[in-house]
Amino acid sequence: MSPELPSYDEAAAIVAEHARRLERSHPEVEHVKLGQSAGRVLARALRADRDQPAFARSTRDGFACRAGDASALGWLQVAGSTRAGDAPSGPVEQGAAWEIMTGAPVPKGADAVMMLEHVEAQVEAVDGRVRLLSSRTVRAGENIVARGAEAKKGGELLRVGSKIGAAQIALAAACGSATLGVFARPRVAILATGDELVPLEKTPEQGKIRNSNAPMLAAMVAEQGGMPWLLPIAADTSRALDAALARAADADLLLITGGVSAGKFDLVEPALARTGARFHFTGVKIQPGKPAVFGERPVKTKSRPTKRIQYFFGLPGNPVSTAVTFLLFGVAMLRALAGMRDGGPRFALARLSADVKVKRGLTRFLPAACTFAGAMPEVAPAGWQGSGDIAAMARANCFLAVPEDSEQLDAGAIVRILMM
Amino acid sequence: MSPELPSYDEAAAIVAEHARRLERSHPEVEHVKLGQSAGRVLARALRADRDQPAFARSTRDGFACRAGDASALGWLQVAGSTRAGDAPSGPVEQGAAWEIMTGAPVPKGADAVMMLEHVEAQVEAVDGRVRLLSSRTVRAGENIVARGAEAKKGGELLRVGSKIGAAQIALAAACGSATLGVFARPRVAILATGDELVPLEKTPEQGKIRNSNAPMLAAMVAEQGGMPWLLPIAADTSRALDAALARAADADLLLITGGVSAGKFDLVEPALARTGARFHFTGVKIQPGKPAVFGERPVKTKSRPTKRIQYFFGLPGNPVSTAVTFLLFGVAMLRALAGMRDGGPRFALARLSADVKVKRGLTRFLPAACTFAGAMPEVAPAGWQGSGDIAAMARANCFLAVPEDSEQLDAGAIVRILMM
Repeated sequence: MSPELPSYDEAAAIVAEHARRLERSHPEVEHVKLGQSAGRVLARALRADRDQPAFARSTRDGFACRAGDASALGWLQVAGSTRAGDAPSGPVEQGAAWEIMTGAPVPKGADAVMMLEHVEAQVEAVDGRVRLLSSRTVRAGENIVARGAEAKKGGELLRVGSKIGAAQIALAAACGSATLGVFARPRVAILATGDELVPLEKTPEQGKIRNSNAPMLAAMVAEQGGMPWLLPIAADTSRALDAALARAADADLLLITGGVSAGKFDLVEPALARTGARFHFTGVKIQPGKPAVFGERPVKTKSRPTKRIQYFFGLPGNPVSTAVTFLLFGVAMLRALAGMRDGGPRFALARLSADVKVKRGLTRFLPAACTFAGAMPEVAPAGWQGSGDIAAMARANCFLAVPEDSEQLDAGAIVRILMM
Repeated sequence: MSPELPSYDEAAAIVAEHARRLERSHPEVEHVKLGQSAGRVLARALRADRDQPAFARSTRDGFACRAGDASALGWLQVAGSTRAGDAPSGPVEQGAAWEIMTGAPVPKGADAVMMLEHVEAQVEAVDGRVRLLSSRTVRAGENIVARGAEAKKGGELLRVGSKIGAAQIALAAACGSATLGVFARPRVAILATGDELVPLEKTPEQGKIRNSNAPMLAAMVAEQGGMPWLLPIAADTSRALDAALARAADADLLLITGGVSAGKFDLVEPALARTGARFHFTGVKIQPGKPAVFGERPVKTKSRPTKRIQYFFGLPGNPVSTAVTFLLFGVAMLRALAGMRDGGPRFALARLSADVKVKRGLTRFLPAACTFAGAMPEVAPAGWQGSGDIAAMARANCFLAVPEDSEQLDAGAIVRILMM
């Protein structure tokens, strides 16, 4: 164990600090139709175009009334009826009630709604009368949402940097926003390195493997709101790496896989250093993913001629290590570059279904399968052959986090899982 | 409280039973490029095209050896070197070692790899020799993944019905699958009903609101692997509903919002009944979402002339109710129709940050905000004005589940959250 390596928490804090710096530099703005906005990030705050609700709204089917009148338990004359979609009506005079449907505007004069199930009714020739059941009470304001109670006209409903999902789309629709201003997606260069790699279309010769990291990272980047840009595989030579790094300078973020261990042919760090890189960490006390590298370098290209800083990650080349380190560190930077305010990996809790033993000293992230559908989310380690075992990772749907100072997690314990 | 309404668990079990029936009837198959396959469902099992790993692979930088030799702590002659991407080499004779890099094929004759950090080396004119540090041991098989340990050639790696994400894409890439057979997406009709609704492009007159449910459900349906099909808003008349239900018969699943409460103008159930519907439940002991309806009806249309069963949900029209009931019940049916094996809502656990008090008798799902990024996921209720409060839902990222028999959840407790 190298004592100088940061712990997981320390490394995450370093990444978070750099992610925060990016909040100041907002990406470009584009406009998308509301129906195409899921997964994008809001670039213009959403404001209420009118009070929400725009009128005092009944939350029940029943009878609008004056709570004082109704509480006297006398008969109230039904003076009218308002259904959802009708304009506000009334007035409801003293001693009167007004039939009303859920979602309808409360008529003037009324200050409460008696639920249909809480009244007795007498229907006569022309109209009817109702009375609150003696076992029931009604207070002023009951079953009514006051005008503007949810939001005031002009009030900020969603701030810049909000990720847009179904609920945000509903809110924008309620405000009449048919299009939204969103941040342009950051372009993320994905550079797989290694003489052992062949593209997926090729049959690997003896000793070689297909490049599975690049398509995996492309899917993860797209999922997190980035635009993946797949570079050709780079061989383990300084010349190949120098050329690839020069090309990658156009990207907003650079993800490199492989070539960051301690071996003779781990040439990625020296190649990055030749481009003027500063390293924020080179290794973290985690497993898998210990050799993970994070840093920044100055870049300037023909198509982006202003000198700027490009952040990069050197992710270990074993696919499980690649996935874990991207989720733990890469996501936070990508989300910040996308203009999102709530970066960082996503952890949840679940109940552990079997004992787990590990060696102390590294924070572990073990491929695990969690049943999210049952009464209690239960997580079990997937069983794996080490960080090259893609099959095990594909059977998993999360990673079980084992703290650095733990040797054992007990079955039945509530544990942390890193969501894929 | 209607005593005859099913509890949340009972209603969920009813939906799960119907979802299981759908597993027998597989949707059509289409072929997509691997890079476009995220979120789709595998229609053909993925099998290993060769052993994984295809060769005994070193998991470390170091020296391949015979464990017996090395354990004798004598000097071993370095007889060759293999890097990642090289063909398997060797043999490693008795008394010899072989330099090896992470990911490289283990040379013939060797049965273990000594880590670089665990040996002392002597480099001489022509070649070198190494010896295991006396403080270290090495066992046969150590730091080697045997050929086929992760998967055997022809073995099933992903079964039919697996949802495709980044890890599954990595595995398919490792097997050389440039395209995947996936199930066609189910077509989901979304029918918002209610005289109070206007399309989002229109300015609502007094008493009216914009249709926020349809765009919200469209986003949720797409997120869960369906193809949303937005029908025009249907008015609260039998004629309008009959026409809309006839049109919706082309869909694989029908989601209706509004018109399912106990009010006078709640005409959706009678209209469904006129089309021959069977209701599996009409109301559930939950809040929000109590009036939720689930059933099936026989359908036959010009474009799909074979008589078949169409499942439908009547979701309450208040947006928070619509969202919760779709997540709790609709998702399970949609995922089953999409060919997925692991339907159902997604629950996780988090630590509650504030006391929550509710009335007993209904399972509650309260809009809540969970911090997934921190050391401990913490969830806090979002504060809301009832089930019409879209703004509160848009500030939330989950729903806090409060069991039917609970009156209070205490701050600090580990609680269940329904993921959005």
